Amino acid sequence: MTTPHTSPHTSVNLAHQLSRFHDHWAQRKIADLNDYEVKLAKLKGEFVWHCHPDTDELFLVISGRLTIRLRDGDVALEPGELFVVPRGAEHCPVADEETAVLLLEPAGVLNTGDAGGELTRSVESLD
Amino acid sequence: MTTPHTSPHTSVNLAHQLSRFHDHWAQRKIADLNDYEVKLAKLKGEFVWHCHPDTDELFLVISGRLTIRLRDGDVALEPGELFVVPRGAEHCPVADEETAVLLLEPAGVLNTGDAGGELTRSVESLD
Repeated sequence: MTTPHTSPHTSVNLAHQLSRFHDHWAQRKIADLNDYEVKLAKLKGEFVWHCHPDTDELFLVISGRLTIRLRDGDVALEPGELFVVPRGAEHCPVADEETAVLLLEPAGVLNTGDAGGELTRSVESLD
Repeated sequence: MTTPHTSPHTSVNLAHQLSRFHDHWAQRKIADLNDYEVKLAKLKGEFVWHCHPDTDELFLVISGRLTIRLRDGDVALEPGELFVVPRGAEHCPVADEETAVLLLEPAGVLNTGDAGGELTRSVESLD
């Protein structure tokens, strides 16, 4: 958002985009990278156990603290830390406080993976 | 790096990994995401004009300031800002001060793209 208006190209400021929504668990797309989507989400509480059978999933914590539970051990993430959930690995994100994350995975991946349920959200774009 | 040793999974701390190398322009892989590589680099000075004919390329600035020159306008990036260079778009990264970036693109993409030359570096892994 700091790009001079004389350029047709615009950068994406993560803090600005995070200020534009307040709900938890829904994912907002902020950029495309080939057939991948770069997304933001705010997480709070405990999600559902699920997996993505066909793809890895990257979590980068921007603020807050995130625990990603896996069947064989947890991963604790602080701001500036990332983790790639391997494809097919059941996982359950848990955030005791509101936590902002950058997510990266192929377009079309649902947030609840194979589990579905009431926390399922389609991806909205932040333009 | 904050993951308890009882878990087989390890997070990646960007600041820690950045502290492990000091040269400019070479890219270090910190994670795999399907057939993509998540990489870190430290940039300083002016790179070479080049393009990646077959892929977009994501830059996320972690510290410092980066200008990505494109033929039709520049993009200025501060920490917490990202930009995706479209496939085929000629670009030239310029950093007046040392700037740390996270890069994301498919495995096998060379840093100098179609330009080659003395700044070409193969990707090393930070394990």
